[in-house]
Amino acid sequence: MKIKVGVSNRHVHLKQSDLDILFGKNLTIKKMITQPGQFACNETVTIKTNKSEINNVRVLGPTRNYTQIEISKTDAYKLGLNPPVRTSGDLDGSEVVTIIGPKGSIETNGCIIADRHIHVTYEDKEKYNLPDKILIKVGGIKPGIIETNVKVSKEAYFELHLDTDDANAFLLKTGDEVEILDV
Amino acid sequence: MKIKVGVSNRHVHLKQSDLDILFGKNLTIKKMITQPGQFACNETVTIKTNKSEINNVRVLGPTRNYTQIEISKTDAYKLGLNPPVRTSGDLDGSEVVTIIGPKGSIETNGCIIADRHIHVTYEDKEKYNLPDKILIKVGGIKPGIIETNVKVSKEAYFELHLDTDDANAFLLKTGDEVEILDV
Repeated sequence: MKIKVGVSNRHVHLKQSDLDILFGKNLTIKKMITQPGQFACNETVTIKTNKSEINNVRVLGPTRNYTQIEISKTDAYKLGLNPPVRTSGDLDGSEVVTIIGPKGSIETNGCIIADRHIHVTYEDKEKYNLPDKILIKVGGIKPGIIETNVKVSKEAYFELHLDTDDANAFLLKTGDEVEILDV
Repeated sequence: MKIKVGVSNRHVHLKQSDLDILFGKNLTIKKMITQPGQFACNETVTIKTNKSEINNVRVLGPTRNYTQIEISKTDAYKLGLNPPVRTSGDLDGSEVVTIIGPKGSIETNGCIIADRHIHVTYEDKEKYNLPDKILIKVGGIKPGIIETNVKVSKEAYFELHLDTDDANAFLLKTGDEVEILDV
C-alpha cells in the first residue's frame, strides 16, 4: 500500500490572543493545504532565542486553542533548543521561544519537533486495518524504513507528514510516494 | 553487533594547489579525528553559490588529490544545489561552488552529499563477514532502519558516518551506538 509524503517545513500555529498581539488582525490565506480546512497564511514571524533566530517562519491557519512552534532538530541546534518530539497539542515540557510579529512579540512555550505521522480518518483507519504505529519503506538512493505514528481525525487527507530532517535524510519531497509495510 | 556513530557536519577537503590559492600556507591541526591520520583544521572557508552562502565551513586535513565539498541536502536547498550522493573521490557530475578563503577564492566542482558509510579495515570486513551494504537499526524516539555502504581501507576506525540530515532525522549524536542487522 502506497502513501504520499507531505514535507512540513518549520511553522507556527497561533491562538487568537497571541495572534492579536503579534499581528493585531486576522490571518489571511495564502494557500489551502492538503489537510481539510488548513491553510498557509501570508503572515510570517521570527522565532528568536538567546542563541539565534530564524526569520520568515510561516503561520498556518486557522487559529487553534494553543500556540505551537514546530521546528526540526536542525533548527533546534541553530536556536540552542532541545524540544521534545510530540504530536500536535501535547505541549508539556515543550521549549520556550520568543515569537516576533509586525505588531508585537510574545515569549511562549509550545516549541516542539513534530512526530512523524500519517493523517487518516476514523473510517479509513478501520477500513485499512491500520495500527497506531506503522513502518514506512523508503526506496531511492538513501533507502531505509521509518516508524511513524498514525493520527486519526474526523476529516483527514491520507498523507505521511515528515519534517525537513526526515525528508532530507531520505531525499523525499512533497508528493513522493512511499510504501506502508506490514498492513 | 553494535557500531558507534560519527556525525559529519559540512566540510571541505582540499588539494594542495587549491589550498595554496585559498590560504597560501599549510593546514594547521585543530583536532585529530577518529579516522587514522585525519584531522579537523583551524582553517575554515565560505561556500558560495548564486543563491546563498555558508560561512565557517571546516577544512579537514591532510590535503588530498582532489578538492571535495561535503554538504547535507538541507545545505543544498539553502545553496540552490542538487549534489549527487557519492562516496569520497567519486566527483563526476558533482556540483560547482565557489570556495572563499582568506587569501583567495576558487570556483570548483566537487560538491557532493556524502553517502552513509561504515569505515572498516580489510581484515575486519572479512573477520565480521560484512557485506558491501548493511542495514542499521536505530532505536529511540524516532526509530527506523537505514541502509549504509561499507567503505574498506587499510587503516580505519570502525564507525558509521552519517551526515547531519540523517543524524538529526533519527536524533543521533556522535558517540551514540546503533545496531548492525543481518550479519
